Order: sequence, then structure tokens, then C-alpha cells
Amino acid sequence: MASTQSLKSLSKDNINQNIVSAQYAVRGELAIKSEEYRAQLKSQSAKPSDPPTPPDSSSHQSSLPFDTVISANIGNPQQLDQRPITFFRQVLALLENPPLLEHPDVLESTFGYPPDAIARAKHLLSEIGSVGAYSQSAGAPAIRQSVAKFIERRDGFEADWQNIYLSAGASSGVNTLLNVMRGSANTGVLVPIPQYPLYTASLSVLNATCVPYLLDESKSWGTSLDVIKESYERAVAEGTDVRAIVVINPGNPTGASLSEDDIKSVIRFAAERKLVVMADEVYQTNVFIGKFHSFKRVLRQLQQAEPGTFDNVELASLHSISKGMVGECGHRGGYFELVGFDKEVQAQIFKFISIVLCPPVIGQCLVDLMVNPPKEGEPSWQLYDKEYNGIKEGLRERATALYKAFNEMEGVECGEPQGSMYLFPTIHLPQKATDAASAAGKNPDDFYCLRLLDATGICVVPGSGFGQKPGTLHLRTTFLAPGTDWVGRWTRFHKEFMEKYRD
Amino acid sequence: MASTQSLKSLSKDNINQNIVSAQYAVRGELAIKSEEYRAQLKSQSAKPSDPPTPPDSSSHQSSLPFDTVISANIGNPQQLDQRPITFFRQVLALLENPPLLEHPDVLESTFGYPPDAIARAKHLLSEIGSVGAYSQSAGAPAIRQSVAKFIERRDGFEADWQNIYLSAGASSGVNTLLNVMRGSANTGVLVPIPQYPLYTASLSVLNATCVPYLLDESKSWGTSLDVIKESYERAVAEGTDVRAIVVINPGNPTGASLSEDDIKSVIRFAAERKLVVMADEVYQTNVFIGKFHSFKRVLRQLQQAEPGTFDNVELASLHSISKGMVGECGHRGGYFELVGFDKEVQAQIFKFISIVLCPPVIGQCLVDLMVNPPKEGEPSWQLYDKEYNGIKEGLRERATALYKAFNEMEGVECGEPQGSMYLFPTIHLPQKATDAASAAGKNPDDFYCLRLLDATGICVVPGSGFGQKPGTLHLRTTFLAPGTDWVGRWTRFHKEFMEKYRD
Repeated sequence: MASTQSLKSLSKDNINQNIVSAQYAVRGELAIKSEEYRAQLKSQSAKPSDPPTPPDSSSHQSSLPFDTVISANIGNPQQLDQRPITFFRQVLALLENPPLLEHPDVLESTFGYPPDAIARAKHLLSEIGSVGAYSQSAGAPAIRQSVAKFIERRDGFEADWQNIYLSAGASSGVNTLLNVMRGSANTGVLVPIPQYPLYTASLSVLNATCVPYLLDESKSWGTSLDVIKESYERAVAEGTDVRAIVVINPGNPTGASLSEDDIKSVIRFAAERKLVVMADEVYQTNVFIGKFHSFKRVLRQLQQAEPGTFDNVELASLHSISKGMVGECGHRGGYFELVGFDKEVQAQIFKFISIVLCPPVIGQCLVDLMVNPPKEGEPSWQLYDKEYNGIKEGLRERATALYKAFNEMEGVECGEPQGSMYLFPTIHLPQKATDAASAAGKNPDDFYCLRLLDATGICVVPGSGFGQKPGTLHLRTTFLAPGTDWVGRWTRFHKEFMEKYRD
Repeated sequence: MASTQSLKSLSKDNINQNIVSAQYAVRGELAIKSEEYRAQLKSQSAKPSDPPTPPDSSSHQSSLPFDTVISANIGNPQQLDQRPITFFRQVLALLENPPLLEHPDVLESTFGYPPDAIARAKHLLSEIGSVGAYSQSAGAPAIRQSVAKFIERRDGFEADWQNIYLSAGASSGVNTLLNVMRGSANTGVLVPIPQYPLYTASLSVLNATCVPYLLDESKSWGTSLDVIKESYERAVAEGTDVRAIVVINPGNPTGASLSEDDIKSVIRFAAERKLVVMADEVYQTNVFIGKFHSFKRVLRQLQQAEPGTFDNVELASLHSISKGMVGECGHRGGYFELVGFDKEVQAQIFKFISIVLCPPVIGQCLVDLMVNPPKEGEPSWQLYDKEYNGIKEGLRERATALYKAFNEMEGVECGEPQGSMYLFPTIHLPQKATDAASAAGKNPDDFYCLRLLDATGICVVPGSGFGQKPGTLHLRTTFLAPGTDWVGRWTRFHKEFMEKYRD
């Protein structure tokens, strides 16, 4: 019994090495440590009246220099301050417990349900039956039809509901698309750097080739066609079969909101080189500066303007209920629309998603509510509009306050907040800090973020987790946490850190 | 513009060939056709007052010889007659819309909420916060703790909540485990035949090796250790690195309920050959004959009885909210427990599941309710108990009625219903039917099931979709559909079919 280890079937050395080598820092070492701190604070506060425990080297945990953990590592609005939109949750409660519908008068008088929430729940139940039943693999037809109509209203161009696939969040959609398009280890996908690491991690798990292209920090993190071309040409020269280009707009982690011209360039390039465009548009309503341009609309406009030139373009655009003012991450809802895909390829996508049966049905219903919210004049409109705009304004205020704080910190540069839920400042650290990081076996940005967590309870993600231009250091923080206290903690920490390591 | 096809990036020939070659008949050709029939019936019934449409070769759809589609191809209780358990849905509605909790008196007096439903919702909200927030990757700690306590009560042995991983249904758990254990194309997994095709399909997608072992139809579809050994030895001789054995108990599609001795044999074999045991126990409460024995309890008993011999065993046991008397498929909830797994391997599992963030949180809450239902004496107990046993009794009655009908059909042999949600009868078809199938390019069982669907609207899955001993033919049907009308339709169809093709 001294070592049963070698008798095991599975060890880190013999399991899937593509998973072993994958990196996913958003829930990596720092996030795990922050959850430990949170549990420690909870267990301390749960026993306020207990007598002090005598020191015990095996179980004693020293008290932490902060009283709350701020999870700014992940865009998880409802973990922090954001409240769900009332109309959405009113409908969901009725879908979960339809007998509530037997007393609409009490729902209205006592619980403040507006009649359109009740009507919507009845309509959805008539379409889907029970939310406890599997739906069709690509989602309930009625909800896919709602999504198609939303896209038509948004873009001014037709959408075919049979090309809409509901998914368990956009992550699941990305996973499906990359799985299907991966022909061999040589299959390449152009991925922006910095990027949300879902892409690099999934390509790693699939043993496919990530072809990184750098975003241009000097131009508010826009795309540079020259840089994309150069990355593409280099990969092709190395024998990679580049099949797709990922664009995240608005950007994660950068927050950048792409111009229509940038989008046109990408589509034109994709048409020329026969690349699938994967447009990750989950932050489409989180735009502070400029305006969101959907890839679908820009593609259709190009197709009208230059008939024939763009007919071959394959576009997959993804959306989610997790972000925007909806912020319903825990419900795992989303969709992707396919444009220009081969029917036989779509049949394989259908088979692939069928193996895990269907996305969560209540999440599908939330997709329906997101794309078809109360309209002006309907009973729920006023509250919906107030809540929606309140969340939007709150995000802008928090982003601006954090942006200002960053720009007052020594060695930190941060562009004006443009969109999404993140700021991605550059940090310049003194040589002594870089040396201390080396000595600890860490990247300098990892080292800084770890110290920040230990000192303040604020959890962010080092730039290395997203990829960054060599020689630069960044970090990504959400601006979802309320109040200014945590920003003050960070400012004090930064000052002390810089003083400690001053050259 | 004549052919834009060749200008596409993706075609069936260049995408992931492991997906192209995967088979998943549960939602294959027959299921797709049945959904088309359902849509056709719906569109017909939606226009009852329309004048008769003149025949039109392009759009006219001839009327179908049945008025309902019976989806007996998939264990989807709430699509058919099964109503959700009241207590579960009362709690879920409060989780979705917490402001309902502001008027507990009205919930009780008008909507019949018992106080324990209200208390449970408050407790879950205090543990998880909003159901709209991401949880930790492996699920909310409090719910994992509930699962561990349930396993302890069920088995009489300790369970560590940190070894419990919540998942989006058991399918997602299987996907995770197979992904992680797949070291190379040479990695082999022993899979029972017949089996639920999640296993063969997932191994195909992962380009791993399926090592089939036949179940023994003559012994109520039990496992035969000799057959398992033979399959294992043959695979090893061919150079396959066999790492795991899948056991589905109670069986899908067979309904078999394994004896304790069969389970012991499998565990002993796994210990000797260093195999991970994947115990798919999603039907653990669907047992009509005998008793469910969990692999975990049997393993712990063996470990007690023969210290040292079984220390190396790695067991993953899976459970789900989709089956049993819960039947909440659409909520996509489940869990797996790992026993004896290497910590480093578990860290890789954690990373893998983190990439898609977390299972649906409302589904996690349903896991909590399933493993921790109302107890005797609590206000919700009486109704819960009545509903639970009513569903169980209903399933038994339907299974028995269908079993009797099968045994009155010419050429059909069906064992007594033992468990799960399925019957898996053998069918003997006349040579002329086999020839007609050949002429149509179909397997004989596919041919029979297709004719059944076309004639009656009843959708079942041919035995070929699960694997079967060469030379035998089967089909799988759920016994979830209510009433006897559909069974009568089937009996009449079968008689006509046999007469038509009589030798």
C-alpha cells in the first residue's frame, strides 16, 4: 500500500496531453486561490461568537488583510451587483411553475406581474411544452424563429431560422464550431491576440493550430489587415491549412469596438482566402463609444454592393444571454447563426450537438426573452427600459471611475473604455519587480496580480492569460464590481508595490 | 455563380472525419423524420377553418395516416405525459424570481406553497446567490456537499464533496471523462453492446478505440465476465491500450438491473487490469425487479472485505436529473463522483470543464432537490411521495402493458421489464421483409422502424443504433407514452407488416 499510484490507469503523463498543455487563466491559479480566500472569509464570519481558536499549525488560517473577495477576473455580473431584469425572471418563474398561472389576478395585484409577462409565459409554454423536456437538438423551433426575427430587425436583412442553433452559452457554440471544422492537427484558425482564452484553449484541446494575429494597441485595439495577412501568409508558408478567422467584437479582453471598415476588410480577406469568419459578438450591446456593426449586416451589404464577390463567405456569428444588460451567465443560453455554410456540413453540426441532446431549455427561453423584450407601450416596457438603461449607465460609470484610477497609477496606461465589460491596461513594472517575479518563477504580470490578490482580495487576470505583444505587460479587470472601496484598495496596493520595488 | 460550392472553406470531405463517421441513431434519420411529421400535423391542425387547398405538386402535403406522433425514441418523460414533481418546481420558481418570497403568506394561501418549499428556496439562494451567476466550474460547493451526503446515505460509506463534479446532464460528464482519459487513438474503452450510443459516438468523435463486449440476452442482458475478458484480451493482443470499462446499470437500452455478483466481477476485473470503471447509473431509481446496487457501495464493501486488493480502483459514477421519477431532461443537470482518481488528473478535469465555465445553475439546484427531497413529516412530504410513487407505478403499468403486447406479436420476443425506461425486444422478420430492406438499402430493423413511423407516427430506434449480436434484430422503445391507443396502432401495423412480407 506504500504506492498505489503506479497501479492507477490514469496519470497526468498518459491522459490527453492536449488538455494538459491547454491554458485557461480566467479560472486558473488566481481564480482558485480567490475562491479559497472567499471560503476562508465565509467560515470566519460564520463563527463570530465562537471563542478564539488556539493556534494550531495544521488547521489555523491567519486572518486575511481584506474582508471581501472581488472577483474581477470574470464577466459574471450577477455574482456582483447586477440584478436580473424583472420581466425576464417573472416569465421564467411561470415557466418553472405553470400552476402559478391559475391565479393571474393575484400575480398582478400582489406580486406586480404585468399582463404581458403572463401572456409571454403562456405563449412559450404553448410552444415548448415543459421546460423539463428535451427540446430538439438545435433548440425549440419557435425560439429559433424568434432569434431569426431579431436578427432581421437588427440588420435589415433576412435570417433563416433553420440556420440558427441555440447553445449552452456562446462557449458551447464555439466548441461545436471548432470541433467540426478541425480536419487535422494542421487545421489553422486565426485568433486575435490578446483574446479570450476560450479560443486558444479549445484549439489546444482539439490539437489544432492556433494562428495568432496581433491587435493594434495604438489604434484602440483595432484589427490591422496587414498584420492579419502577414500571420496568414506565414502560417500558410509553414504548411498550415488556415480555415477560419476569429474576431471578437466588441473585444474581449480589450473592450475595442470595431469600425465598419475594419469589419469590411476582414470579410474581404476571408472571401479572398476562403476563410470561415467566426464573429464572437456576445458584447454587442456593451458599447460605449461608436456603434456595434454586426458581421452579418456588413456581409449582406457587401454582397449587395458587389454581387458575386462575397457569395462564398461562410460566417458564424455568436451571441449569448451571459453578457450585455442581460447578464444571465448561470442560465447558459446563447445561439449561433450560420450563413453560407454547406448543407452537408450543417448536417454534421446537427449530429455533433445531438450527442449531448440539447441546450438547457430554460436558457433557451431566456434567449427568446433577450431577443424579444417588452416593446414600447407594453405594460412591462417602462420598468424594463429603466432597468436596462440603469445597468448600462452603471457600467459606464464604473468603467470611467476605474479608467481614471488607472491613469493616476504610476506606470499604468489605460485607453478610454469603449465596450464589453473589461479594461485591459498596460502596466510598466520596475526591474526589481521583474527580478522578484523571476525569482518566484512567475511572469511579471502574474506576479503583480498574485500580490494584488494576496493584499487586497481583488482577483484579476494577467495579460499573459490572453496573449500580449512580447515585451508588454497587461491585466484584464472587469468593471462590474460596485462602489469605490475596492478601487481605493487597489490604488493603495499599487503605490506600496511600486515603492517596494522601486529601482 | 454556377458553383460557389468549391469556393467554400468547409465541406463534408475536409471537416472532422471523426464526427462524419460517428453514429447517433437516437436523434438520427427516424427522429428527424418524426419531427417533420409533427410539424406537418401542427400546421394542418392550425388551419382547421381554411378551405381545402387544391392539389399542388410543389407544396401539397398529403395527410398522414395518424393524428399524433409518439416519440418513443428517447427517454423524454415530460415531452409525453409525465408531470414535474410539484415541490421541485415550486422551489425553482422562487429561485428564478426571488421577489415572490416577499409574500410567503400569499404563496401559501393562494398558490398552495408549503413552508418547506419556501425555506428551501431561501436556503439555496443564500448559498448560491443568483441563479443567473456563473458558479464555480465543478458546481456550487453547497450543492456538491448535498450530493456527497446523499451518496453517504445511499451507500453507507463516506463521500468527499470535492470529488463531486456537477455536469450538464450525465452526457456532459461522460464527454468530460472520455476527453480526459483519451491519450491517443490507441486508447481503448470497453463498452457494452447493446449500449446507449453516447459512448460509441463520443469515442468516435475523439478518435479513440471502442472495445465492444456483448451483454448476455439469455441472462436478462447481464454482464458475462468471460465475454468481457475475451474482448479485453483480444483488444490488448491487437495493441490497444484498454483504460476503462463502461457499465450502464440499470441498462440502456436493455433495462437490465445488474446483480451484486456481476458488479463484483467487473470491479475485480478492473482492479486486476487497471481499468477505470465508468458506472452510468442514471436509471438508479428506475428498477422494477430486484434492487439497485451502486458500484461505489460494492467497491467500498470489497475494499473492507479484502484490504489492499482494491485500493487502486478508479471509479467514476454518473447520475442525472433527466431520468428516474424526476425526469427533468430539459434542465440539463447531473453529476459524477470520482473515487481513487489521481489528484493531478482531477486538476486536468477541472481545467477542462472550466473552459465552458459551469453547468446550468438552475439544473444544479434541481440536482440538490433530487438528492435532498422532502423528508417524511415535512409539509411537502405527502404530495411528493404520492407524485413520486404515482410516476413509478405508472411506468411499471405501461411497461407491463407494452411487454404483453409485444409477446402477443408474431415474431417478437421481449423479456420482462426490469428497469430503466425501455424495452428492447428481439424481432424476427420474414425473409421477404429482409429482402425488401436490402432493396431499399436499409438494415432490416431500420426498415421495420421506418415503416412503423410512416404508418403509425410511432418513433422508435432500431437495434442497429445500439449495436446487437450479429444475426439478431431488435428495437428500443420507451414505455413513457400514456394510454393504450398507440400500442393498438403498433399491434395493427405489425400484423399488416407480417402479412405483407409473409414468406
